[in-house]
Amino acid sequence: MSESQDPKWVYLFHEGSAGMKPLLGGKGAGLAEMSNADLPVPPGFTITTEACRAYYAGDKLFPEGMWTQSKNALLQIEQEAGKRFGDAEKPLLVSVRSGAPISMPGMMDTVLNLGLNNETTEALANWIGDERFAWDAYRRFLQMFGEIVLHVPSERFDYALDRMKELASAQHDYELTVEQLKRLTVRFKDIIFGEVRQEVPDDPENQLRLAIAAVFDSWMNKRSIDYRRLNNIPNDIGTAVSVQTMVFGNIGEDSGTGVAFTRNPGTGEPILYGEFLPRAQGEDVVAGKRTPMPILELQSSMPAVFEQLQTVAQRLEQHYHDMQDIEFTVEQGKLWMLQTRTGKRAGKAALRIAVDMMSEGVISREEAVLRVDPDHIEQLLHPIVDPDSTFEVLAEGLAASPGAASGRVVFNADDAEAWSLEGEPVILVRQETNPDDFNGMVAARAVVTARGGVTSHAAVVARGMGKCCVVGCSELQIDYQNQLFTTNGVKITQGDWITVDGNNGLVINGRVSTIEPELDDDYHKFMTWADEFRRLRVRANADTPNDARAARRLGAQGIGLCRTEHMFFQDDRITIMRDMIMAPNAVARAEALEKLEPMQTSDFEGIFEAMDGYPVTIRLLDPPLHEFLPAYDQTALEITELKLRLRLAPDLETINGLLKQITAKERILAQVERLHESNPMLGHRGCRLGIVYPEITEMQARAIFTAAIHCQERGISVSPEVMIPLVAIDKEFELQAEIVHRIADEVFRKYGTTLEYKVGTMIELPRAALTADEIAQTAEFFSFGTNDLTQTTLGLSRDDSGRFLPGYVGRGILPHDPFRTIDIGGVGQLVEIAVDRGKTARQDIKIGICGEHGGDPISVNFFHNTGLDYVSCSAFRVPIARLAAAHAALKSQAEQA
Amino acid sequence: MSESQDPKWVYLFHEGSAGMKPLLGGKGAGLAEMSNADLPVPPGFTITTEACRAYYAGDKLFPEGMWTQSKNALLQIEQEAGKRFGDAEKPLLVSVRSGAPISMPGMMDTVLNLGLNNETTEALANWIGDERFAWDAYRRFLQMFGEIVLHVPSERFDYALDRMKELASAQHDYELTVEQLKRLTVRFKDIIFGEVRQEVPDDPENQLRLAIAAVFDSWMNKRSIDYRRLNNIPNDIGTAVSVQTMVFGNIGEDSGTGVAFTRNPGTGEPILYGEFLPRAQGEDVVAGKRTPMPILELQSSMPAVFEQLQTVAQRLEQHYHDMQDIEFTVEQGKLWMLQTRTGKRAGKAALRIAVDMMSEGVISREEAVLRVDPDHIEQLLHPIVDPDSTFEVLAEGLAASPGAASGRVVFNADDAEAWSLEGEPVILVRQETNPDDFNGMVAARAVVTARGGVTSHAAVVARGMGKCCVVGCSELQIDYQNQLFTTNGVKITQGDWITVDGNNGLVINGRVSTIEPELDDDYHKFMTWADEFRRLRVRANADTPNDARAARRLGAQGIGLCRTEHMFFQDDRITIMRDMIMAPNAVARAEALEKLEPMQTSDFEGIFEAMDGYPVTIRLLDPPLHEFLPAYDQTALEITELKLRLRLAPDLETINGLLKQITAKERILAQVERLHESNPMLGHRGCRLGIVYPEITEMQARAIFTAAIHCQERGISVSPEVMIPLVAIDKEFELQAEIVHRIADEVFRKYGTTLEYKVGTMIELPRAALTADEIAQTAEFFSFGTNDLTQTTLGLSRDDSGRFLPGYVGRGILPHDPFRTIDIGGVGQLVEIAVDRGKTARQDIKIGICGEHGGDPISVNFFHNTGLDYVSCSAFRVPIARLAAAHAALKSQAEQA
Repeated sequence: MSESQDPKWVYLFHEGSAGMKPLLGGKGAGLAEMSNADLPVPPGFTITTEACRAYYAGDKLFPEGMWTQSKNALLQIEQEAGKRFGDAEKPLLVSVRSGAPISMPGMMDTVLNLGLNNETTEALANWIGDERFAWDAYRRFLQMFGEIVLHVPSERFDYALDRMKELASAQHDYELTVEQLKRLTVRFKDIIFGEVRQEVPDDPENQLRLAIAAVFDSWMNKRSIDYRRLNNIPNDIGTAVSVQTMVFGNIGEDSGTGVAFTRNPGTGEPILYGEFLPRAQGEDVVAGKRTPMPILELQSSMPAVFEQLQTVAQRLEQHYHDMQDIEFTVEQGKLWMLQTRTGKRAGKAALRIAVDMMSEGVISREEAVLRVDPDHIEQLLHPIVDPDSTFEVLAEGLAASPGAASGRVVFNADDAEAWSLEGEPVILVRQETNPDDFNGMVAARAVVTARGGVTSHAAVVARGMGKCCVVGCSELQIDYQNQLFTTNGVKITQGDWITVDGNNGLVINGRVSTIEPELDDDYHKFMTWADEFRRLRVRANADTPNDARAARRLGAQGIGLCRTEHMFFQDDRITIMRDMIMAPNAVARAEALEKLEPMQTSDFEGIFEAMDGYPVTIRLLDPPLHEFLPAYDQTALEITELKLRLRLAPDLETINGLLKQITAKERILAQVERLHESNPMLGHRGCRLGIVYPEITEMQARAIFTAAIHCQERGISVSPEVMIPLVAIDKEFELQAEIVHRIADEVFRKYGTTLEYKVGTMIELPRAALTADEIAQTAEFFSFGTNDLTQTTLGLSRDDSGRFLPGYVGRGILPHDPFRTIDIGGVGQLVEIAVDRGKTARQDIKIGICGEHGGDPISVNFFHNTGLDYVSCSAFRVPIARLAAAHAALKSQAEQA
Repeated sequence: MSESQDPKWVYLFHEGSAGMKPLLGGKGAGLAEMSNADLPVPPGFTITTEACRAYYAGDKLFPEGMWTQSKNALLQIEQEAGKRFGDAEKPLLVSVRSGAPISMPGMMDTVLNLGLNNETTEALANWIGDERFAWDAYRRFLQMFGEIVLHVPSERFDYALDRMKELASAQHDYELTVEQLKRLTVRFKDIIFGEVRQEVPDDPENQLRLAIAAVFDSWMNKRSIDYRRLNNIPNDIGTAVSVQTMVFGNIGEDSGTGVAFTRNPGTGEPILYGEFLPRAQGEDVVAGKRTPMPILELQSSMPAVFEQLQTVAQRLEQHYHDMQDIEFTVEQGKLWMLQTRTGKRAGKAALRIAVDMMSEGVISREEAVLRVDPDHIEQLLHPIVDPDSTFEVLAEGLAASPGAASGRVVFNADDAEAWSLEGEPVILVRQETNPDDFNGMVAARAVVTARGGVTSHAAVVARGMGKCCVVGCSELQIDYQNQLFTTNGVKITQGDWITVDGNNGLVINGRVSTIEPELDDDYHKFMTWADEFRRLRVRANADTPNDARAARRLGAQGIGLCRTEHMFFQDDRITIMRDMIMAPNAVARAEALEKLEPMQTSDFEGIFEAMDGYPVTIRLLDPPLHEFLPAYDQTALEITELKLRLRLAPDLETINGLLKQITAKERILAQVERLHESNPMLGHRGCRLGIVYPEITEMQARAIFTAAIHCQERGISVSPEVMIPLVAIDKEFELQAEIVHRIADEVFRKYGTTLEYKVGTMIELPRAALTADEIAQTAEFFSFGTNDLTQTTLGLSRDDSGRFLPGYVGRGILPHDPFRTIDIGGVGQLVEIAVDRGKTARQDIKIGICGEHGGDPISVNFFHNTGLDYVSCSAFRVPIARLAAAHAALKSQAEQA
């Protein structure tokens, strides 16, 4: 069979390109791309993944023609390199490396320094002028080949090496003499033959053939198979094999090796950043025995090389249109590129690089916007722990709300408030938080909980405040009674200093310096670009005028969720709220509601004012009423205490006073018991409250419209959107909407004026999504409450899932925490169904999302594709959502093009 | 315009038929049908609903031609009746009644005795020979016409009547003399003219015209509109008006009036059953001043009439193919039928009538099957409260599990067990039940709870046992401390007798006699017929060998749901189960599981044996582990008590003993606290347990396959189906199924044999339904857990919804309690989606349902139409489901035909 009839199994680097990743693997395609860009890459070739698949299909034999093609390619390399494989003067050495289309770091095998035998080792020694190096390279080659190609247990080599060091009284490998190294090569050969009755071939071609087969084989080793199963990588894509000329950075003073970024990855400053170690190979840098020099010093010590490097860096950036992270070797004054990849960078650098490269004309505005990750923006908005500091981590938890803060530990909300009033920076540490802790959270610089997930109460409220928070630190053993916590043997008592890193979910011992955020001109310029491209509008979830103002400063285009219940938790109000709940009849209830109304009205006015010109979506009362009552256990305890005091009461007056208190508390206790629910998440809440107590809906509607009219009279442009929560059935919505419209008419009549408003609903239950067409008959807008929709669709309580959900993500049962990134396969289907049916029933229905997912980039991308009108998220995630929305728009444009 | 060009607005009874209900209304169509069947119906005609609609469309004027057609119809009636409207000798009197296509009882108006004036009243008096009756009829006509047609307030007439009685020193209306009645007619006329400046026309035609218009008008009175809104009846269908000759049962000794069933509605015995009152009109029967005679006595007292009646009854049954409930009047020896409708009947009667009529050739076998309602079957299966007894209802609740039982009240499970062992019949009364109450429920004759809905723990468990149960008796104030409950002022203490009516949801004071069920030949014959028609197979939910045997006796074709956790609640087992939960490590856990395994194995053997030849679906452990631990409050209390005893401990030994107990209990308490969940329904349960603790899945699988092999070796035919609960994600299922298959292989290897089995999943979360295609890649069967699917789809906790769900159904927000009858519009969509996607992915997938809805007829009909293979329900609902499945099959056949 003539060669030309065989498939092309082998590509010289020059014949490939970055786009051929499926065929050449990631490494092969990258080397090809650099070669074609005329960058100095040690010559080589890549055997395709197709060849690997054919190898497995055909009883693990090289497919017809592959070996011949490989040898031909080798010939070309020899010519390019000016060295010959197995040559006794200037021997060519090569490496054989795996490279799958999808990166599987460390899973498969690599063999270096192929081409060495006794003869070529001598030649190498002569040529480099370093015998020790040459024999050590040979010794390493034998060991690597023995282990990987011939499957000799590595302990055998380690043992022999240790014995030799003992004999030589050497502590380190590099103390061995050339003679000892030579003896070791002999010993290694004996070991190999003894173990597997096979010899390492002296013939370089035979070495190469066996090494290629071994790399193919490593595709199916247990480690790789497990890794692929875990990461959902198909088994049948196969790996490519790259064969590349070895270069040496340790041949004389004009050689060396280095790593560098083409720009500063911390700040974005457009100058080379990295290190160089003269007369060294990559592994010497890793070993860390010599201190490398800053790369800029090359400018004086090796000006020619530095110039080469700068040119190459520029060419790389021009070619890849991005900042690069490179590895290179200088062999006798000549620069060789070993690897280039897009450089990881800090948020600040990402922003500056994007803006600079756009100014330099390297990238377009679209590319600049796509170049900055939403996570980068997040870094800019919050303090971070000084990366140069050292510290002791007390516990790891979930990074629930970003930022970093130091403070003194307190264990309850009252202490937090009291200490804070005295000017003490405090960190509130709780088992978990509930609405009673609200004031403590306001007072604290950061919040830590031992329980709960990223959408637990603590997490949601902290994110809403833009406050640093770490939750689910299950290692913390909190002892409220003694006001301390222990973790991994360390005991922290009230008043001790800790630092919380909400970016990485760390609780750190003591005070650690933090760096404050700073939004510069680059940021503002960049965000303007991003805003130009996005279609999704971005609103904020905000419950108070303060939050609303902060949200607007961060670019929010309205409020997507104003949770009215948070207004009830302030001290003077919770008492009235409790009166309302304890009311024995509708009259008493109406009385309490009447007291609450002006408070709500004034809050709404503040929010409307802050959002002048933008819509404000106000959700009617949502949580079950028992959330406003004190906890059962606590009240029972208080009653017991009062009863004990009764025993010691000195006079009748005290007794009467105590009895009165006891009676009052017992009434509350009875009500708490009556309102107790087994599953409050699925209980008497949302619009179910308004249906049983229409007077609550009436009061809230009256407050909204009164506030809106007041604002309108002051020249503020208001667009209230009244949102009915937890609707499952169209009639629930109709009944509540009827009340809202009636009250609106009443208020309009009273003031002799009118205004535009909408009444819509949360879509947060599967049934609402499935019957969205029915609900859209009367609902003028939808807002997806994806938190609750996730809980009900997956049957997964966000408060309780902490015990197993991390394991689910860890084991790949779910790709992400579904409370952080929307579960596209499940919850996403319901979103699509609801959008589709809602629009069918009402073409101009406005649809948004106000769950936690509104600030998550992957989710924002999904919402863009689903055709939503806006996303709404915590104020402090608004810039992230803005950028994510721009990315989504650009990506879908690109896909359509 | 010639008459023939007008639409036909008026139909003589002879011109209509039963099928013309939309046009003639229910009453008109019924009278037409009887007339056409040549039954003796007083002649009359019906004005169509179309005329009513035209009346409203045209400014409330009679449509062109309607009045002329009515007068022509009246002429025909006069001829038929041999009387004339307004005649001074034999005057024809008519009634004018409304009759909409959909029954709206009591909502619209009726005017009787039209045709009376001074002259015709005298004529009537002469003809009947009863002046008092004639003038009283006129007086009543004036009052009715005044109120309904002329809108005079009824109080005005009542006041005048009372004044007249005062003057006459009369206590009752009938004590008034003819002279006084005459004066009253004059007074009534004055009142009417004084109020509305209008007179009741003397001209009968004018009376008729005005009365017809008034009945049309009553279609739009507030009462009717409200009723239609509440019952979802459209406003635009309109009402028909029937004008019919009046007949009198009080003209002499050969007249009378009666009501009868064509067969005994209690027993089904095929003889007339009813009452007759000679010389009387319908209203006299209602007034109840004279005692009517049993209808069979007519045989001797009025043999000719009795014969007529029997003939008519037979003709009616032949015509309607069903037992009829009739009203009739005998006027001077002639029988007149006033109404016939299908007669309501008790379960026993329904069955006998169906079987008899089929034997008589009146109905086909299909009709016989359709004729018996599943509710009728339910009555046959459970004791009922003797309908002839009188009793005092203490409280009403939800009829959670049918039956009736008397017993002595106890307030906890231990008392229930102890008393029952001493031979006392007990009723367990609890706030709500939990798994700890299981033994008490076994011991009790009936269970009553103050809280919870029809799918609460008490309800589900009681239904499973076929035990009478009433839940959600919110009127009960239970005082555990003093062992009593109060309700509506009555106090019931421990040991008092009460009776529970689970058919009607009543708690009754004292002992009331009950009637035991009896399944006769008719029942068995009938059920065989039903089984012939159904396509759905019917399985039972059963957790023990006993339950399985009972289920099979009732016709179950396998077990659709065996809840393994119920096996763990028995006394010796719960201790081991707790050891398992408290295990500090996997080894200790494995040890506890090893102890449980033989117990599970032996239970499974018993169940397989009972179901020899049928499949048994076993669900792996489902509830969260904390359900197996004692309640927090109780344990905390016990610890406090132990600590108090510690203070008084006399010696060191006692102290040490107490300390040991305290330590043990505190460990439990800590675990209870650790396992506490905010929303256990959405918590760490179902397959999430098996994923975190695979050793539980392994133990259960081993028990299942060991039991199956043991049985197979004994010649029993076993088909185990292992069911993984609460799957939301395909990978959850895959991981669990992998374990089950592995263990099956192990067991098969151990015994050197094998057997057929399936591994499948519950579909009980919206996400599972939406991703059914993915899950069906590996799952071999689906079983809908519609209880949990309803909870998650509607976001509605069945345990907590009692406070507002009844109001939802009452106000028409939901058509049914969604935990009793499946919510077709919401949950039903998910069922359809899952069936569709499941079958697409795996054509031969077996699909059933094992939620509570499996025994609900409406739901069974839905499941039939959705293409499920089987339904599974409580054993005691199996016959109901069998019949419902037959109905569903017959109905869908009929629809397709």
